[in-house]
Amino acid sequence: MKSGQNMNATTPDTGDLAVEGGITPLQAVPFRLANGAELAEVNVGWQAYGALNEDRSNVILLCHALTGDQYAAAPHPITGKPGWWDDLVGSGKIFDTDRFYVICLNVLGSCLGTTGPRDANPATNDPYGLDFPVLTIGDMVRVQAAFLEQIGIDQIFCVVGGSMGGMQVLEWTTSFPERVFSAIPIATAARHSAQNIAFHEVGRQAIMADPNWQGGAYYNTGKRPDAGLSVARMAAHITYLSETGLHVKFGRELQDRDAITYGFDADFQIESYLRYQGSTFVDRFDANSYLYITRAMDYFDIAADHGGVLANAWRDTQTRFCVISFTSDWLFPTSESRDVVRALNAAGADVSFVEIESDKGHDSFLLDVPEFHDILQGFLAASAQRRGV
Amino acid sequence: MKSGQNMNATTPDTGDLAVEGGITPLQAVPFRLANGAELAEVNVGWQAYGALNEDRSNVILLCHALTGDQYAAAPHPITGKPGWWDDLVGSGKIFDTDRFYVICLNVLGSCLGTTGPRDANPATNDPYGLDFPVLTIGDMVRVQAAFLEQIGIDQIFCVVGGSMGGMQVLEWTTSFPERVFSAIPIATAARHSAQNIAFHEVGRQAIMADPNWQGGAYYNTGKRPDAGLSVARMAAHITYLSETGLHVKFGRELQDRDAITYGFDADFQIESYLRYQGSTFVDRFDANSYLYITRAMDYFDIAADHGGVLANAWRDTQTRFCVISFTSDWLFPTSESRDVVRALNAAGADVSFVEIESDKGHDSFLLDVPEFHDILQGFLAASAQRRGV
Repeated sequence: MKSGQNMNATTPDTGDLAVEGGITPLQAVPFRLANGAELAEVNVGWQAYGALNEDRSNVILLCHALTGDQYAAAPHPITGKPGWWDDLVGSGKIFDTDRFYVICLNVLGSCLGTTGPRDANPATNDPYGLDFPVLTIGDMVRVQAAFLEQIGIDQIFCVVGGSMGGMQVLEWTTSFPERVFSAIPIATAARHSAQNIAFHEVGRQAIMADPNWQGGAYYNTGKRPDAGLSVARMAAHITYLSETGLHVKFGRELQDRDAITYGFDADFQIESYLRYQGSTFVDRFDANSYLYITRAMDYFDIAADHGGVLANAWRDTQTRFCVISFTSDWLFPTSESRDVVRALNAAGADVSFVEIESDKGHDSFLLDVPEFHDILQGFLAASAQRRGV
Repeated sequence: MKSGQNMNATTPDTGDLAVEGGITPLQAVPFRLANGAELAEVNVGWQAYGALNEDRSNVILLCHALTGDQYAAAPHPITGKPGWWDDLVGSGKIFDTDRFYVICLNVLGSCLGTTGPRDANPATNDPYGLDFPVLTIGDMVRVQAAFLEQIGIDQIFCVVGGSMGGMQVLEWTTSFPERVFSAIPIATAARHSAQNIAFHEVGRQAIMADPNWQGGAYYNTGKRPDAGLSVARMAAHITYLSETGLHVKFGRELQDRDAITYGFDADFQIESYLRYQGSTFVDRFDANSYLYITRAMDYFDIAADHGGVLANAWRDTQTRFCVISFTSDWLFPTSESRDVVRALNAAGADVSFVEIESDKGHDSFLLDVPEFHDILQGFLAASAQRRGV
């Protein structure tokens, strides 16, 4: 399933959870991107759980993070692991599939079914590689909007996501405000910071420094820049955790040994853990997709798209917002969420803001943080009542 | 001057500052390391500024950081840049060379004159590469102590250093307490944290992933793992700065262009800056030295060397301590300094502790931070009065 091209409507083993999805050609082609390029063909990899109600008012759109995918509540087709929000999506769960139609789309530029640099360029029949156009978070969201329209959905009850998913949430509320009843941007920002760009640049340089990357044209060579991609993932993974969390989880504990070995093996558990994160990542992700998606995040800057005034992005918005951050998240710190909340308030938006105590760092939105789950539940319940779902 | 082997007693252009130094064979050989290995030959690269007084009571030992060197107040032999503490060392400056004999030694395992993996293994006449023994901060300090003894110095008025330099300061005060009158550990810790080990491991993996590294045996091949070392330096460099500092210095400013290019060039100033940091670093530092020295830092854990109780390291110490941290340093945060201060207090030591407000991150100790300089000056003056220098 590496290329994703052979996937079709699938019914993975998700117990009693009704699932539909697959890879569907976008009808709104050629698709014009922010940089002016046009994609003659666009496929969309997607999954949906639950059933649409009669007036199609029960849609929850989940937006995934940088290396996430549409398998929010179904086993991952490559790793076999449970979906990234398996704990939250399902019958009787917070995103209750008995009540809501929960849908998640692989973002443009990724590699789990939606068109990206690994796919064939219709003009040449060879994989795009670096001929794939550099895209933006706005492009990702416009593909999502076009796809949802195509399947008959023009209203979203709630759009929700963390990290880059949160960027998409913010983009949705400013690009398509009339389609979004409520929005939950989590652990995110209205623009990528210098430090965040810096970490992404390290990851990209690690990939590009790998001779197997071959200028991005590695697909049919039998070689992949696994070493570079693995280093990129290791560096990024540190930023997803907190210093305290790492201390609590690993400290200076040794890995399967009683004493340091005076060598360069993984003496410490944290080293072993990081190496594992790097080495498994390369089996499920494409290096060029990593380049393109990190670049899209770097370019994200809502204020810049609105005359430099963030509040202008949300003038007259009717969307209900719940902005969530985590105390130990130093990649997308609370100050970034505060900037969003301040702008939403300045725009007169209906916004609540919660900073949640957690030592789990940026990844808190993917982990078992009960207060976070309570907040989601409460906001969804109040929004559903207001909307009459 | 790449190998450092051809250096000799030098008199670099330091204006009126009296300088001595060079590369001097250690007489205390074979030198036994913590891991049991012995080095048959050890050279020490060093520099000293000012003059020894009659009773040799005016010695200030500067300990350099991971990628630092002995050129604290003289132009760097490769880059030509001023010494890393040029602002602090000299006539009338804080480390006043009219009054003190200020000496700095390149650490064991490094590549600016002191023996390291790039040097010839006397057993084979080939460069050591990975046959060089893995060493510790304690080994570095024991080489320094043996060398100082060799040149007739058995008392240090003040030992001072930041980051890994601070680790050496702490090691000096616990391994040779009777030789150290006062000590200034700056922006450091009594043990390397999980997060710090994690960042080092990323750097090492970046180097080792570079095919030009060749298992460490690259010296006579005409190829060096520059790409890997550059990525390692870029990742590390981010950790030396603060999020706020990066925002203030770079923000999302573009590099020599008016708009983003929708590509993978260095659109942003922060990208251009990081790439520059990486590409210039490889000209002045050896990749294997980077592996060995980062490993020594990872292994550093004073409490573990003292039955798990940090205070035991300093029982009955007579040394005067001034512990300094910086508010925006997230690599060696104030909490690490507090742990040291708490242990020193528990041991009944004479210790003062200052956390200095700075948005310049870990690198504050190398930058123009007036309050930091005031603190150094005050502590040195009080210590000199006490000591009668």
